[in-house]
This record gives sequence, C-alpha cells and structure tokens, in this order.
Amino acid sequence: MIITVVGLGVIGGSYVQALKGLGHDVYGVDVDEATLAQAKKDGCIIEGYVDGRDIVSKSDLTIICLYPSLVLDFIKTHTFKKGSIVTDAVGIKTYFLIEALKLIDQDVEFVSGHPMAGREKKGYEYASAEVFKNANYIVIEHAHNKKESIEFICDFVASLGFRSVKIMSPQAHDEIVSFTSQLPHMIAVALMNSDTEKYDTGKYIGDSFRDLTRIANMNAELWSELFLNNKEYLLESMLHFEKKFDCLREALINDDVETLKDNFRLSTSRREKLEK
Amino acid sequence: MIITVVGLGVIGGSYVQALKGLGHDVYGVDVDEATLAQAKKDGCIIEGYVDGRDIVSKSDLTIICLYPSLVLDFIKTHTFKKGSIVTDAVGIKTYFLIEALKLIDQDVEFVSGHPMAGREKKGYEYASAEVFKNANYIVIEHAHNKKESIEFICDFVASLGFRSVKIMSPQAHDEIVSFTSQLPHMIAVALMNSDTEKYDTGKYIGDSFRDLTRIANMNAELWSELFLNNKEYLLESMLHFEKKFDCLREALINDDVETLKDNFRLSTSRREKLEK
Repeated sequence: MIITVVGLGVIGGSYVQALKGLGHDVYGVDVDEATLAQAKKDGCIIEGYVDGRDIVSKSDLTIICLYPSLVLDFIKTHTFKKGSIVTDAVGIKTYFLIEALKLIDQDVEFVSGHPMAGREKKGYEYASAEVFKNANYIVIEHAHNKKESIEFICDFVASLGFRSVKIMSPQAHDEIVSFTSQLPHMIAVALMNSDTEKYDTGKYIGDSFRDLTRIANMNAELWSELFLNNKEYLLESMLHFEKKFDCLREALINDDVETLKDNFRLSTSRREKLEK
Repeated sequence: MIITVVGLGVIGGSYVQALKGLGHDVYGVDVDEATLAQAKKDGCIIEGYVDGRDIVSKSDLTIICLYPSLVLDFIKTHTFKKGSIVTDAVGIKTYFLIEALKLIDQDVEFVSGHPMAGREKKGYEYASAEVFKNANYIVIEHAHNKKESIEFICDFVASLGFRSVKIMSPQAHDEIVSFTSQLPHMIAVALMNSDTEKYDTGKYIGDSFRDLTRIANMNAELWSELFLNNKEYLLESMLHFEKKFDCLREALINDDVETLKDNFRLSTSRREKLEK
C-alpha cells in the first residue's frame, strides 16, 4: 500500500516512524526540506516532497497531520487518488468535519481520526514510534463512511501500536475531548498564570507542579482555534470542574474534614480505575 | 556519623537508598518488619528496629519520615542523643514547627526540612535514590537554629542529589508550597471528580489527562491534615487560580481570541523559564 504522511511534526513524524518495517511504501510531505531529508535518512520514507501534488494522487492512504485550518487548505488544493482514503489528526471534529466534507472529492473517502497522543514539544525531532504505544485512538464515523473503511482505519492504527481504538460520532468526540484534553490545557494555563512570582517558583516545585503545568507550554494559534470551535462543550466541562473545585474550597473554609476526605477518596478510586 | 531514618516509606526508603555508599552508619525504624528486612537485604541499613528507642539515643542525625501527627508522637515518646540533630519531611511548617518545638528536648536541635520529591505510590517498594535526583529541597529556619546546623543540613541533602537547597521561614515555606504543591493536588482532585462518567473515560485520555490527574490518587488522612493546617495560604492560592481560570472562561464566552492567545503565550513563556 502507498501511504503518504503530510506534515512531519510530532504526530506525522511518529506516523512515519511507526510505519517503518510494516511493509508499506511510505512517502512524506513537509514544507521543511531538512525534515524530509532526516526522515529519509532514518529510513522512514522512500521520498520526501515539499509539494505533495504528485504523490497524493498516487497514494492509497493519505494521513494529513497539519493544524485544522491547514488540513482544509490541503484538501482544497490537492486531488487525491480515486477510491483512496484520506485521514487526519485534528483535535476537534464537529465543526471540522462539516468543512472537510464540503471540500473532499466525491470519489475519495474521508475517515477522520484522533490519535490521543503527542508531546509538549514540537517538530520531527520529538517524533517517535513510542508516542503511539499504548495510546488511545478515536475514529470518527460520519454519514458518508463505508463500514469497511472504518474497519480499515481501526485495523491500521491498531497495527501502529495504539492500545484502544474507539468509534464515535463527531459530537460525542468533541464532548469527551472537551473534558479529557481541552479542560486539562485550560487548567494548566490558569495554574501557570496564577503564579504571583513572589518567589523563584522553579526552586520550590516538585513533580506535582511539573506534571500539572507541562502542557501549559502550548501553541497559541492552534489551541485558540480548537477551543473556540468547541466552545459549548468546553464551557460545560469548565463549569463541571469549577463546581468540584468550589466544593473543595467550601469544605476548606468550613473545616469540613469529612467532605475533603470523601473527595480525596473518590478521586483516588477513580484515578486507580482509570488506567485499568 | 550514625544516621537513623524513621519510617521507610517512599521518602524514608529513598533516604536510606540515597545514603548507601556515602560512608555513614545508617539504621532504620519502621513498624513493618518485612520492610526493615528488605532494606537490610538491599544493604541500605545496618540494622532495622520496630522500636526506635535504643538507636535514636545513639544517633547523630535522626530523619523522621512520618505523617505530621506521627512525627509529633515520635518526638514526644523518644529521647534523642544530646547535641544531635533531628529533621523531618513534613509538607507544612508553621503549625507543625510550633508543636514540634514545644516537644523537642532542649539539648537536641530540630532542623525542619521539606524534600520536594515523592511518588504517587506509597511504600518502600517505590523508594529509590532517584527520587531525590535533581529535586528541590527547602530548609526551614527558626529562631532556635544555629547557623552551622542549617549549613550542615544544606550540605547533607546536597550530598544526596538534591539540585537546589533553599532556606526559608516556616511562613514563606507554607505560602509557596500552597501554590506549588497543595493547589495542584486540589486541582487534580477536582478534575478527576468532575468527570460526568458519561463515557468510558480511560479510553479517551491522552498524556495531558494522565499527567494532571496522577496526584489525584492521594492519602485522604494526610492531605486533609496538610490542607486544613495551611488553610489561609491555600485559599489564597485557590483564589488566584480561579481568577485566571475565569479569565479564560470569559474570553471563551466572548470569542476573545486575543485574550486567549495572550494567556497561552504567557503560560508558555513561564513554563519554559520554569526548569531553567
């Protein structure tokens, strides 16, 4: 199978690295020639292209790993092979799919997907097949998808090392992701920004602060686009969080040790269950 | 130097492991005989004691790694060697030091300390010298401390691998720790508990959710004690956080993309600066 990965950043780069040795003919498209040269040197792609026109017209599967608006631009300006499958890695789906399905050619099937994986650093140098190992993947099913195309993507991503592959509607995806991905990013930003900087904070942190703020290092363009296009679900998730946070604050104000302990026991049992 | 570590959990266990090979005579005290046997087998302690009375009366340095209230019980019920130093690893200091200094013998010096390190799992099996590597340590100075005793503890913990050792007052410690440690724990609990459980959450998470909720697995007894005894500072830190979180929520409601981006750029630059 001929597979082309468009955009060799952390996600696209991890795709070509995870594909290595699986027996496909893999090509890469990227604006950066040095990245293409490195991926070729790593034995992850047969050839790299700055202009993807020729290669996507021959590819059985095109995986576009660009920012949401750039995925739409790419679909608009490229002609894919008839009968081929095109997929993406965009973090919101309802709004995005409406746009993408308007643009994609009738004889090409768009199967949208979301690898729940990544790094806080950008670029091919942080890509690795390890990024996908034991991670979750969500396949988005829409009205125009064929059952066998959904199955094909499920099997394909499972072969790359994803631990769990789930199929959902764009709306269900955006609802759960507002909680599991977008809300944590909002929290990390607020935590980092609430530092009064009275002390030299870096000298007084442990792993808890490191863990909670790692994702506060984020791309402003990408995330504002993702958040604003998933506003309703995200606001709901933020509200749920703030209610629980206020409940802890009230318990603290009232020296209500039992409510505090109940909350800690609940979070502990839920956290233990989470990765089972 | 004869050193006794009391309580061989993650922190105490990491102390005896980090002390291995540094040329001291190290002993352990723990209620669990199997833990003592394991530490002895690991070559980390010369001997283990369930009752610490005999050994702490001969020790030049006693490191008590128990829950705050149990540290106070231990000090109350034990007689330390005259002229020796006793230290701890308790996470709050103002309230704790008032109690501890009432109890400690006049001819023994209590130098309070806080290793900003740990694991989310409990027990000796999760202890490792690695826990302290590149971590931060805070030495708490109070009115009865001698300059040379503070210096001794600073040098001692530096020899165990801590990257940064800072000296502060109990109040300053409690203020910064309410932000860098206690607030992240409150956030993690609220995030975990705000799950509506409409979906099988574990199948839809990435590393961001994993990182932000890892510490939601917490000991209810210990943390309610720590929080309630540092209530004023913690409430202030929670308020600062909530203001920044509300600022993001407002920006989202108003489609205020510039405020969102400003917040993301600020959190990014602060996070990048943090570990330098």
